[in-house]
This record gives sequence, C-alpha cells and structure tokens, in this order.
Amino acid sequence: MLCLKCETNKEWVEIASRNLESIMIDHAHCERKAASNGMSMILRYPEKTELVKEMMDLIDEEMSHFRFVFNELHSRGITMTRDTGDRYAQLLSEHIRKPEPHKLLDLLLVDALIEARSCERFLLLSKSESIPEDLRKVYHDLFVSEAGHYRTFTDIARLYFPAETVKTRLEELADIEAEIVKGLQNLPTVHG
Amino acid sequence: MLCLKCETNKEWVEIASRNLESIMIDHAHCERKAASNGMSMILRYPEKTELVKEMMDLIDEEMSHFRFVFNELHSRGITMTRDTGDRYAQLLSEHIRKPEPHKLLDLLLVDALIEARSCERFLLLSKSESIPEDLRKVYHDLFVSEAGHYRTFTDIARLYFPAETVKTRLEELADIEAEIVKGLQNLPTVHG
Repeated sequence: MLCLKCETNKEWVEIASRNLESIMIDHAHCERKAASNGMSMILRYPEKTELVKEMMDLIDEEMSHFRFVFNELHSRGITMTRDTGDRYAQLLSEHIRKPEPHKLLDLLLVDALIEARSCERFLLLSKSESIPEDLRKVYHDLFVSEAGHYRTFTDIARLYFPAETVKTRLEELADIEAEIVKGLQNLPTVHG
Repeated sequence: MLCLKCETNKEWVEIASRNLESIMIDHAHCERKAASNGMSMILRYPEKTELVKEMMDLIDEEMSHFRFVFNELHSRGITMTRDTGDRYAQLLSEHIRKPEPHKLLDLLLVDALIEARSCERFLLLSKSESIPEDLRKVYHDLFVSEAGHYRTFTDIARLYFPAETVKTRLEELADIEAEIVKGLQNLPTVHG
C-alpha cells in the first residue's frame, strides 16, 4: 500500500480495537505532532515558498483532526493524558541525514512514510468489527486524508529534487521503515 | 496600556516604519512562534480541557495571521528569510519558574505580556504616517486581535489560579518586562 514494504501485524489491530481509549489519546497526540512538524518545516525552510504554502494547509488539516479527536474524547468522558512518545517515528528519524540538501529530502520522505503507515493503520481500524460503527467511519475518512498527506510530502520532494533521486531514497527509507515495523511490539498506539 | 508598565521608545516606531520588509518577515515568524507556543501548551497540559480548547482557537488564529503576512510578503515579491530570534521573549522567559504550579502560571502570564507588548506596538505601527494606508489598517486589526489574546491568557490563568495570585505575579512580571523593554536596541523587529 502506497510505498510500504510490509503489512501491519494483525495482532496490532486486535490490541488496538480492544484499547480504543489509548488509541484515541495517542491519535490526538499524533495529529498535534504532525502539525508541530509542519511548523518546524516552515522554521527550517521559510524561503521555500511552495513548501511553506503546503505546510500551512497541512497544519490547518492536522489541527482540525486534533480538534475532532479531542472533542470525541471529551464527549466520551475521557481526559487527555501525556504523550507516551513514538518510538517508531524516533527510530525512523534517526535515518535523516544531517547535511543539506539530503536533510530536506529525508525529512520529507520520512514524513511521507509516517503518513503512509498511519494511512494503512487507519484503514485496518476502519475495517475492524470490534470498533463502533461511527468511529470506523471516522477512521475511513482519516485513511483518505493521510493518503493525501503522503502525496503532499512526495510531491514537495519532487519539486525540489529530481524524480529519480526521490524514488531511490524513498525505496531505501521504505526498506528501513519495514524493518522497524517488523520489530514493533503491537502496543495500543497509532504506531505501536 | 493593558498591563504594560512602560511605553515603547518612539525611535523604535521610526526605525520599524523605515524597515517594513524586516518588520513583516519578523512578524510572520512571531505568528508562527505564537502558534508553536500554543502547541507546546497542549503538549505540557493535555489534561487541562479548557486550556486545550483555548489553545486550539489561538493556534487557528495565529496561523491565519501567519498565512496573511506570508501572502502579503509574497505579493510584494519579498522572500521569507530565517528567524533572527527574539531576545526580548528569551529574556522574559528566563523568569518562568521551573516547579509546578508556578510554571503554568508564569507561562500563561509571560505569554499574556508578550501579546500585550505586540498589541501596543501594532497600535503604534497603525498610527505611523510613514506606513502605507493598507498596512496601517492591517496593524490596527492585529492590535485588536493581540488584545484579545492577552485576555485569553489572563482568563486561563484565573481559571486555574486565585485572582489575587494572578494579579500579584502579573505585576511582578510586568515590572520585569518593562525593564527588559527599556534595554532594547530599537531593532526593526516586532519586539526589537
């Protein structure tokens, strides 16, 4: 699916479906972090007009998702708790090369991969019969949205780098991502 | 004005009016940083529902201001450059106490003071005859908006702390802020 090279373990779907409160809180934090990440990209590359424009739209969308999940939690009487961190994203980010222009390319492609994995997992949640119908519909909408964000990041990459360079590095990072996913412990978090 | 204990030096208004490009770029960064700051508050205090709700609205508004300033720069053929930092905000933030609950109170009141100072300075810009009429109108709208944000932060503070505690600490921090402002070098930045 998209550029992903391995599927999420079925056990994760079962654990996630049985721990919806945990998934929803972690999901709210994921949306907040995605918006924060968009802001970091503007901080790092303010002179790249097209990148800034895309990030402004992305931030608005991620924050509207955050608001939605936050309100869902509130309506279910669930109080948000602290972010427990995202080991998957941390491990993947370790492969971002430090020198420019490699850094920009890697930042964009790591973001694309995180969006692709979120997309795959929201689709799995939308199909889980253990999850209430209304939430399954929400996860289906999010699956569509995250696929759009995957394309946003790969499109920006192709704007600043040759298509062949993007393709090669995306393949490399997708291999790394698959290895990281195979080692995950199936925790009840979006990337657990 | 609001809680401020000293006025901005008139020299700053003259320098700012003569360096509009610099002011506009720094202003865009200020809006981005205000939105990022709202996100940090959500990261730190996710369990404080009212605070999170207010921060969500604040982030939307700051990002819409960022978008506006970014588009204004673009329409004038000005390319955004890197953030040059905000020594005023850094110096003020050094007075945020580390232990909770003092930290929350100080974070809110430092944010309130920064909004109040921005408010005062946008009013000064809106009155400067050296600035084009359309931009003066924009600065007047921003003056109103920043005054609203000042109230947002002080209102949240009063939600979580006794009114007397808020008043006393705001007085203390306003004294510190005034001393910092008196030492500024009148640079062409929003808080310069």
